Amino acid sequence: MFETAQLGRKVSRAEFKKQEPVLRTELLEIQQQLRSAPFPVLVVFGGVDGAGKSETANVLNEWMDPRGVITRAFEAPSEDERARPEYWRYWLALPPAGRIGVYLSSWYSRPLVDRAYERIDMGAFHESLDRIAAFEKELSDDGALILKFWMHLGKRAQKKRLSDLERNPLTRWRVTETERLHARMYDSFATAAERLIQKTSTGHAPWDIIEGEDHNYRTLAVLTRVRDAIRQRLARLQTASAGAAGAPHRRQSDPPPTESAPAGPTVLSQLDMTQSLSRKQYKILLAQYQGRLNLLARRAKAAKVSTILAFEGVDAAGKGGAIHRVVAALDAREYQVIPIAAPTDEEKAHHYLWRFWRHLPAAGRVIVFDRTWYGRVLVERVEGFASERAWSRAYAEINDFEEQLIEHQAVVLKFWIHITKEEQLERFKARENTAYKQYKITPEDWRNREKWDAYEQAVHDMVARTSTVAAPWTLVEGNDKHFARIKIMRTLCDRLEEKVGKVKL
Amino acid sequence: MFETAQLGRKVSRAEFKKQEPVLRTELLEIQQQLRSAPFPVLVVFGGVDGAGKSETANVLNEWMDPRGVITRAFEAPSEDERARPEYWRYWLALPPAGRIGVYLSSWYSRPLVDRAYERIDMGAFHESLDRIAAFEKELSDDGALILKFWMHLGKRAQKKRLSDLERNPLTRWRVTETERLHARMYDSFATAAERLIQKTSTGHAPWDIIEGEDHNYRTLAVLTRVRDAIRQRLARLQTASAGAAGAPHRRQSDPPPTESAPAGPTVLSQLDMTQSLSRKQYKILLAQYQGRLNLLARRAKAAKVSTILAFEGVDAAGKGGAIHRVVAALDAREYQVIPIAAPTDEEKAHHYLWRFWRHLPAAGRVIVFDRTWYGRVLVERVEGFASERAWSRAYAEINDFEEQLIEHQAVVLKFWIHITKEEQLERFKARENTAYKQYKITPEDWRNREKWDAYEQAVHDMVARTSTVAAPWTLVEGNDKHFARIKIMRTLCDRLEEKVGKVKL
Repeated sequence: MFETAQLGRKVSRAEFKKQEPVLRTELLEIQQQLRSAPFPVLVVFGGVDGAGKSETANVLNEWMDPRGVITRAFEAPSEDERARPEYWRYWLALPPAGRIGVYLSSWYSRPLVDRAYERIDMGAFHESLDRIAAFEKELSDDGALILKFWMHLGKRAQKKRLSDLERNPLTRWRVTETERLHARMYDSFATAAERLIQKTSTGHAPWDIIEGEDHNYRTLAVLTRVRDAIRQRLARLQTASAGAAGAPHRRQSDPPPTESAPAGPTVLSQLDMTQSLSRKQYKILLAQYQGRLNLLARRAKAAKVSTILAFEGVDAAGKGGAIHRVVAALDAREYQVIPIAAPTDEEKAHHYLWRFWRHLPAAGRVIVFDRTWYGRVLVERVEGFASERAWSRAYAEINDFEEQLIEHQAVVLKFWIHITKEEQLERFKARENTAYKQYKITPEDWRNREKWDAYEQAVHDMVARTSTVAAPWTLVEGNDKHFARIKIMRTLCDRLEEKVGKVKL
Repeated sequence: MFETAQLGRKVSRAEFKKQEPVLRTELLEIQQQLRSAPFPVLVVFGGVDGAGKSETANVLNEWMDPRGVITRAFEAPSEDERARPEYWRYWLALPPAGRIGVYLSSWYSRPLVDRAYERIDMGAFHESLDRIAAFEKELSDDGALILKFWMHLGKRAQKKRLSDLERNPLTRWRVTETERLHARMYDSFATAAERLIQKTSTGHAPWDIIEGEDHNYRTLAVLTRVRDAIRQRLARLQTASAGAAGAPHRRQSDPPPTESAPAGPTVLSQLDMTQSLSRKQYKILLAQYQGRLNLLARRAKAAKVSTILAFEGVDAAGKGGAIHRVVAALDAREYQVIPIAAPTDEEKAHHYLWRFWRHLPAAGRVIVFDRTWYGRVLVERVEGFASERAWSRAYAEINDFEEQLIEHQAVVLKFWIHITKEEQLERFKARENTAYKQYKITPEDWRNREKWDAYEQAVHDMVARTSTVAAPWTLVEGNDKHFARIKIMRTLCDRLEEKVGKVKL
């Protein structure tokens, strides 16, 4: 989930200085329009200490008219606050219509900290997150525009950031004992945070995960998003009131954003696509991993652990070849490969997830999906087969689906096999020039190629929203088929070993 | 919550015979249209054993074309089903678009039974209900029309129904050991059921609580609702496709129903409005209760238990007088009366619940609301100040609000003071004829009076959806002011005693 916020994105000082005056002017203009609008705006910050939450809130206050902004940070509750239900202080701190409320620590802080310290169990943690979701839904149903930014720093980046602050006598005061302790608990916080984001990233109040390392990048990312979201909502209200004369006004919820502007590198652009393996190395390693996999699969069967493999990738990425190497190690009675093409009539008459539920293996079996439920947020999104509402809702639906598989003791592995645009061209040409491969290439493949950038963005968003600790995405550098296949075999064996124990060949 | 399904509603054999052929024809016609519609219909039955779940499902199958209806009852999971995640069998049993799925025991059965037997704790129960809500939301987002009927029988009615079945040798087989055991556990089931209904009665898939005692009544109630809901959805789809040429099609969710037709007696029409107290009895009792209340309030203060009193009622029902008698027993520093009139500008710029959150007392105090947050589902509904979407969503919002008060150890009491239409007329005239009471009567009061039936229906629905074990509604027969005031004082003292222990005068 946080992979997409560890890309080292930066904005130069020159670029920042160029964008600043434009953005400031626009923010002030929009704030002016907002003043007479019938809805409030909530800007909620969460995230890792040192990732720039308060700095960004400060810039927001500096660039906008502070008379229209209420900034709040909730500390430990006062006596007055303890004398009332927990949410009393949050209700009272809500901005009225036309204003912006900025929350530095919010209704998210206590559940997150309590869970990271293991003061509450998962059940209680989920109850808290449900309450948050209900609270935000009520506000959103009433018209509030809710923007949530999760400011992220990797473990190493956080460590560096804190020691930088400590070294400077002018900023040393900002690193307290609590921050040092929390930094040591990085992993506990990350696990709780992932769950928190997954459960509360709803259609009406989604989280944007912002890379927090570079001041310029994160400032522009957050403030551009604030500008765009308010502008979009104001425009929609105007259209609605102009369009539906006489009709009762009904607010539509904003579709969740999918990219935290400004656009930049994606998870795919960071892959080292030059990695390769010689034919000799490949043969040796493949035999080793296939032997290991065979033993592991038998043990998994005995332990009633299912294995669910999801393969995605651009055309000609080598999904078929990789799947072939995986199943070659398995007993034919124990696995099944399900190729996913266009849905049948019967499938079309059901929910899009129905056809995947249908094919679920009984416990202990291996099932390989050649293309998957992620079609909803890849091809259906890019080609416009699913509405924006439908595909943006699908991230949560898919996380929920996979969670049910995992609860039932399945191991879920998801592979995105990536190749460069040049490599794809080579492979397409080779297919056209080889008689027995011609069937593999269609005009559609050439058309899909034209939407390369849109697909790349869709993959980036997919990884951001569905790569979880329990079902992470493995991005496979696929320009060299040997390298790709071995990476897949190794990942699969390692995950199975975690679940059923190490085997010896 | 179940008060509204214990009114002894019946439909005579003659009336039933008259309605049957009309309804059957309409159901078949609608089913014909549904066949080519792009959505499926789910009819889910839940409720008390013996309340006619399977009988009603049988009638539905008999009256409609069975080729378009799939009926399922999920028993203990088979080996095949246990080998997969719990929801696998539910997904596979979903009807395709154009068909109706009828579920006799459903995804609700296991959580309900497990909770009633205390095999799972509240946390696990809530997790199950969350999963159900997410499942139904996914289906509904995809277009499914979900109708849920909770078939209800009171404790005594269930006992009678089971012994009737047992006495008849032809039906004796239907009463198993399980049913006898569950009947003995009536209260455990009712408590779990109330929570289940509250948590899963969502805008897109609300529960209808159906009185199950009379075969004819419950059959017509369910099948009329099925007819109306499908018809409404079909009509909406037609309007949408006719109206929005070119515009992307976007399905609107159906507003939850508020009355399970056919209309009949309401909770108010069942009150015995002749109850009264002599002036002498009243004086004695009032003094006693005021003394008790004073002691109880002091003890509650020491225990930091807040008391929140909500008063509602038609104009001239006697709210003011009753409130006056309550607070007369309290220390002036320890209570506050909040009269709720039209919202201020500042209040209008916030969520409607904000102004009630504002006034929450610190722990240990007494606060009396003269008119309340229920305005949303009473006056705002009847007068059209709130949209249907807004007020139908409010039931869940209000339950959630009160739940937070109760979790914080507050005692929440809600009084609906009722008077007959004739009595109101008398009081209005008396006010007009008494100089010092004239200020109390306005043209608005006369206008409200014209909407008597609409208000009565709104009160009925309010009680059905918001009278919970922790915050029940007390319906007060108000034609005799003495009787009403004493009933209120007694209810208040009893509830406080439950919370802080008995006091001796």
